[in-house]
Parts: sequence; structure tokens; C-alpha cells
Amino acid sequence: MIRERVDTGHTSYDIVIGTGLLARTGAFLQELNVKAASRHLIITDTNVQAAGHLAPVLSSLEAAGYRADVFVIPAGEASKRLALAEEAFEFAYEKGLDRHSVVLALGGGVVGDFAGFVAAAYMRGINFVQLPTTMLAQDSAVGGKVAVNLSRAKNIIGAFHQPLAVLYDIETLHTLPLRERRGGYAEAIKHGIIRDAEFFDWMKTHTAAILQNDPAVLPELLARSCRIKAEVVSADEREQGLRAILNFGHTLGHAVETLAGYGRLGHGEAVAIGMVAAARLSVRLGYCSAETAAEVEAMVELAGLPTRIPNNLDTDELISSMQKDKKATGGTLTFVLLRRIGEVEIVKEVPPEQVREVIAATREG
Amino acid sequence: MIRERVDTGHTSYDIVIGTGLLARTGAFLQELNVKAASRHLIITDTNVQAAGHLAPVLSSLEAAGYRADVFVIPAGEASKRLALAEEAFEFAYEKGLDRHSVVLALGGGVVGDFAGFVAAAYMRGINFVQLPTTMLAQDSAVGGKVAVNLSRAKNIIGAFHQPLAVLYDIETLHTLPLRERRGGYAEAIKHGIIRDAEFFDWMKTHTAAILQNDPAVLPELLARSCRIKAEVVSADEREQGLRAILNFGHTLGHAVETLAGYGRLGHGEAVAIGMVAAARLSVRLGYCSAETAAEVEAMVELAGLPTRIPNNLDTDELISSMQKDKKATGGTLTFVLLRRIGEVEIVKEVPPEQVREVIAATREG
Ligand SMILES: NC(=O)c1ccc[n+]([C@@H]2O[C@H](COP(=O)([O-])OP(=O)(O)OC[C@H]3O[C@@H](n4cnc5c(N)ncnc54)[C@H](O)[C@@H]3O)[C@@H](O)[C@H]2O)c1
Ligand SMILES: NC(=O)c1ccc[n+]([C@@H]2O[C@H](COP(=O)([O-])OP(=O)(O)OC[C@H]3O[C@@H](n4cnc5c(N)ncnc54)[C@H](O)[C@@H]3O)[C@@H](O)[C@H]2O)c1
Ligand SMILES: [Zn+2]
Ligand SMILES: [Zn+2]
Repeated sequence: MIRERVDTGHTSYDIVIGTGLLARTGAFLQELNVKAASRHLIITDTNVQAAGHLAPVLSSLEAAGYRADVFVIPAGEASKRLALAEEAFEFAYEKGLDRHSVVLALGGGVVGDFAGFVAAAYMRGINFVQLPTTMLAQDSAVGGKVAVNLSRAKNIIGAFHQPLAVLYDIETLHTLPLRERRGGYAEAIKHGIIRDAEFFDWMKTHTAAILQNDPAVLPELLARSCRIKAEVVSADEREQGLRAILNFGHTLGHAVETLAGYGRLGHGEAVAIGMVAAARLSVRLGYCSAETAAEVEAMVELAGLPTRIPNNLDTDELISSMQKDKKATGGTLTFVLLRRIGEVEIVKEVPPEQVREVIAATREG
Repeated sequence: MIRERVDTGHTSYDIVIGTGLLARTGAFLQELNVKAASRHLIITDTNVQAAGHLAPVLSSLEAAGYRADVFVIPAGEASKRLALAEEAFEFAYEKGLDRHSVVLALGGGVVGDFAGFVAAAYMRGINFVQLPTTMLAQDSAVGGKVAVNLSRAKNIIGAFHQPLAVLYDIETLHTLPLRERRGGYAEAIKHGIIRDAEFFDWMKTHTAAILQNDPAVLPELLARSCRIKAEVVSADEREQGLRAILNFGHTLGHAVETLAGYGRLGHGEAVAIGMVAAARLSVRLGYCSAETAAEVEAMVELAGLPTRIPNNLDTDELISSMQKDKKATGGTLTFVLLRRIGEVEIVKEVPPEQVREVIAATREG
């Protein structure tokens, strides 16, 4: 079991990573001084429930004397919407949740974002605990961003709301499809690239074990990845500057993901392609060596993630999708570029023609 | 013009009170460094718009080079709901609001709470400016609480979100019905009672002028009242303890308001009755003299506010409504009791029988 302390500046909390943690949820809540007098709320999704992860949480809470109700949302991104959050609020209120109640988010990033938003707004903010069940959670469960979507924009309605704790039971990953695990792993690779060359090297020799859910390796992977995310975010809780380096691979990645149609390419897969392209763009603009870009590409390949932009995605549409993405921050086309493994730089006003060339050179065979 | 600085601990902002302010909104935004490159959003309600207060804001923004869209909600408490907030979010997104956009809340407490909630959640929090148009705003526009309602509970979904500034144009109060002005004034009286005997004495001699919207008196009333609210809240932004003194008159007041049926008795009217009863309860429990309670009652009467509990409200129902209200905080029956004018005390576990006696003694003639 690894215990990683996260200090956000305003508050701090533990990320606990190991096996058999869900069955000890009740004991953890006691340790966190969660009141047994209040009712609590578990939010999970249909897949996570079907995979059998709700049962140990429920029995453990009961054994520790906690009363918890369960709100199950349909699996998938479409559940991150305000109307469903309202149902959760009404449910919470009917069940008598009060200021001392805790929301438990049992699931992947969708459940974490949704349940975190519910906790952030209910009675102007009650505590929540993350019980992540996906590989991506080393990214999504850290940083305090919670949100739901609008019909045409993701994560646009939300809050900054830090969890009381993150209990990361790696046994849940056994039921997570390999493709989902790979997708989540892409963000861990990103964390190495942007901040930690040693971690990146370590991943080179441990990727096979990680993707096999090896309990001797996985906790370290998740802990190091969480730590990097937490460090970047703590240094910059309100997203003034540094946090933007987390967007490495995401400028093109988002465009690829959007144009492929959500679900066709997973987020992590699109980011993998985006990282390869960003590394190549860095070479082209003189930020790093071709060897460094090749290292990125080799790692993405090693993880079984895609490295090439699907040919059916039009270059003009990719470019204009990236420009639209940026409109939201009022700026011009911005990329996170690579200096060397472990060090990136935010570069504004990258000429679209350069990006266009890189896209052309990063197509499927 | 009075300018009152509020320091919340994390941030600080100005409350500006005077005449002709709405027509200078644009200039104020410039002073606040609000970006003209972004689009902004005015949220108001049908009555405020019909009373003519939107027009000066719009022309002033235009004159200062700001582009703003307007989202008008139906007047009334029923607009404080999540589904309407979602419409506002979609509207804001369609119009292209970004992180630098500002929401302007032009109206009373309903608009302030609703628009503040929209600003708090849009892109995880953008700035908002309060442009209050009611007497109650010396209470509702200060303190950073923003919220919408659930079907069966008020203000249950929300956030703590401080405004960038409050521009309080007292000319708007000319179109506000006298009954609404009196209701808002009840909370100013409350502020005197709980914290400031000198202010209370000042109100004794200025009530008539205040209720006539005398521009030589009103700004001082609003400024002093805002200051007290701000002080109490700043000392206790997350409602740990002190803030609870703002509930003076509200324990019974809420019950009276609820049982009368929302709208039958205004909130301020119900609070007025609640203050009279709380003062009498304080005498009965030995907290203050009968003279002090008489002072409270005389002031409520002077303001033309009700002092007696309507006979059609059943005592048992009032008691159980108060107990239900308290369930939400997990505690027993709690009252804010009076020591002397300017000093109150939070008293837990007040015996319901004592409250019952006071209710009986505070009935209509
Ligand atoms: N808040 C943040 O900082 C942040 C960061 C990155 C991503 N996100 C959000 O995270 C979401 C994506 O997260 P995700 O990839 O975890 O998606 P997800 O929660 O939808 O999980 C992916 C799929 O796996 C299923 N699943 C989850 N755990 C399982 C398990 N143990 N066994 C079997 N099936 C399981 C889910 O039901 C779903 O079908 C997006 O909404 C994204 O916006 C948030
Ligand atoms: N956030 C807080 O700390 C806080 C504190 C107290 C009350 N509140 C909230 O405030 C709300 C009550 O506020 P309110 O009494 O201002 O209600 P309100 O906003 O509904 O205004 C009362 C009525 O007057 C109308 N009106 C407003 N300004 C006018 C003007 N200048 N001329 C003519 N008509 C005008 C409105 O349309 C409405 O019909 C409640 O929802 C309550 O929960 C919030
Ligand atoms: Zn990502
Ligand atoms: Zn009140």
C-alpha cells in the first residue's frame, strides 16, 4: 500500500493506492472522521456496479456503522449533465444528506467528475472521497476539477473541489478492458514526458507489467503519476500558467478525438497521437532533437497506443477544430512543446502551416 | 456616493452606493479592468426590466465599448432552479462567454443568487458584479452565498462566490413597492440588533426618511447594513460559527414564512415577527430585559412591519417546522437570543415549551 500526501495550498489529502482497499472503505472513513450520524451517498455507474465493485464498498460501510444510499448513473460520458445532477441532488436531499455527509465517487473519470460536482454544489459544498476504478484516474481523480457538460461543450459547468481522500484499489482494474487501461496509461506517459525523465525511463522497462496489472508495479506507476499531476496542479491551483503543461498532446489530441467522433477513438488514444505529433512539431520548430521525438513515439508504441492520425480526418478540419478550442481562452493557437524528456514549454502563436506539415507527416501508413 | 471596501479574507471588493450608478456601469467595469475583448452577460428579471433599469445599463456598457447579451428570467423565487440555470449556461456558451467574461446580476436577491450561481459554475467560476435593485440587497448581495433551489428546499444547490464589485444604485428603489422596501429594511434592523446599538439608535430617528427613499439618508443606511453583514461573514466565511447570528429572528421567521405559504408573508415580514418573538424568548429565558425586547418591538412597528404571528398558523406545526429546519444541521432547536441591543448569543437546546409559550403570547390581538 502506498500513501501519497497531496498539498493543494488550501488543504491536503491522502491518495492511498493498493489492493483490497474497497473492502476497507468504512475503516478509511473512520480514519477521516466522517460522521456515522449523517447519511452518505455512493455515486457509481452501471458498468462499475456490474463489475462487482459496489458490493465490497457497501458491506464495508455497513460493517463500520455507516448508512449510505446509492445513486447509479448510466455508464458513459452522456451522464455528465446537469439534469442528471439535479436528480442526484433531489435524491440526496430526500435521503437526508446534510453538511457532514460525504459523497463517494466509485468509478472512472465520468463518475468522479459527476459525483465531485454534486458534492461541490450540494449545500454549497460537502466532502467527497474518490474511489477510482480506472487507469485514467491517476489523472482524473487528482487536481480538484469537477464538472458536467453542456450539450455542445465538455466540462464547462463545474467547480474546483478537492476530495477528502482518494482510495485507489488497483484490483478494480482487473475488470477494466485493456483498451481502457492503455488509454489511461497514455496520461501517465504524458506525466513522465512533461516533468520526470527518470519516471519516463522507468516506464520503458515496466510497461508490460503495468498493462498486465502487476500488483508489484502498478501502485508505483499510479503513485508517481498522481504525484506529478498533483505537483503541477498545486503549483497552480487556479490554472494561471503551469497547469497548461498538462495539455501536452491535447491540442491536436482533442481535435482528433472530436473529429473522429467521441467514442471512436478513446481520449487517451487521441492524446497518444497528439503527443507524437507535438514531439514532431517540437523538432520542426527547433525545440528538441529528433531522438527525443523518437523516444516519445517508441514509448507510445510500446504501450500499444496509436501513433498516427486517421486518414479520414481532414487536415483543414483538424486545424479549425484546434482554433475553435482556443477561442475559449481568447488566445491564438497554442502548443505545449518538448525541450527534452521531462521538460516542456508553452508556446503561443505556433504558425498553422507548421502544424499542417506535421499532420501530413503523421498520417497512417 | 459611498464606497465601502469588503475584505473576505481571500479577496476584497468594493460596494459602491449612490445615485445614477447604473448609467455608469461601463465606467465601473473599466475601473475593474474587465476586458472589452470578451462578451459579457446581464442577467435580470421581467419586473426589473419593465421598471426600466436595464436600459441605462445597456447604454452605459455600449458607450464604454462593452458587448453584453441579456438573459431575462421570470420574476419570482420559482426562477431559482437548475433547469433555468442550464438554459443560462447554454445561452452564455452560445454567445461565446469565456473565462474573462463577467456576469452582471441586475435585480433583487433572486437575480443575485441565480446569476451568482451561473457565474460560480460557468467554466468553474467567472467573475460577477452585483447591480442590486432591492432594499434587501444590503443583505442578499453581501456574503458570497449564491444558490438555486430544489423542489422542496431553498438555496440547497450553490456555491460561495464573491462578486467583483457591488454597484448599488438607490434610484432603482423608487420603483420597488413599499412593502418590498419594508421587508428588506427588516434585515437592516436585524443587523443593528445583532451587532451595532448605535446604528440601531440611528435607525430609530431615520426610519421615515429611509422608507421614503431619501437620498440624503439611504446610502448611509445601506452602507452601514452592508458593512455589518460583511464583517460577520468575513470573520466566518465558511459558516463555522459567528455567521449563525445572522439567523436572529429566522428560526421562527422561517417557520412562519413557510406555513403562511411563500408569498403570503414576505421573508422580511416573517423575520420581523421572528425578531419580536426571539426578543421575548430572550426575556423569558433571562437573557435580556423586558425593556430591550420592547425596543425591538417598537422598531419593528415603526417600520410598518408585522409584530404578531397570524392566528391561522398552528403552534404545533410551527414547532415541528422549526425542528425540521434544524434537522439539516444535525442539531437540536437553536435560537439566536438577545443579550442587549447590539449583542446576541447562539443558544442551543432551547426547550420547545418555552418557545410554545412565547408563540402563544405573540399572537394577533
Ligand atoms: N477532472 C479531471 O481533471 C479529469 C481529467 C481527465 C479526464 N476527466 C474526465 O474523465 C472522463 C473519462 O474518464 P474514464 O476514461 O475513466 O471514463 P469512464 O468513467 O467513462 O470509464 C470508462 C469506461 O469504463 C467503465 N469502467 C470504469 N471502471 C471500470 C472497472 N473497474 N471495470 C469495468 N468497467 C469499468 C465505465 O463504466 C466506462 O464505461 C471524461 O469525462 C473526462 O472529461 C477528468
Ligand atoms: N445570498 C444571500 O446571502 C441571500 C440573503 C438573503 C436573501 N437571499 C435570497 O434573496 C431572494 C429574495 O430577494 P428579494 O426580496 O430581493 O427578491 P426578488 O429578487 O424576487 O425581488 C422582489 C420583487 O421585486 C421585483 N423587483 C426587484 N427590484 C425591483 C425594482 N427596482 N423595481 C421594481 N421591482 C423590482 C422583483 O422582480 C420581485 O418581483 C430569495 O431568493 C432569498 O433566498 C439571498
Ligand atoms: Zn487528457
Ligand atoms: Zn433573511
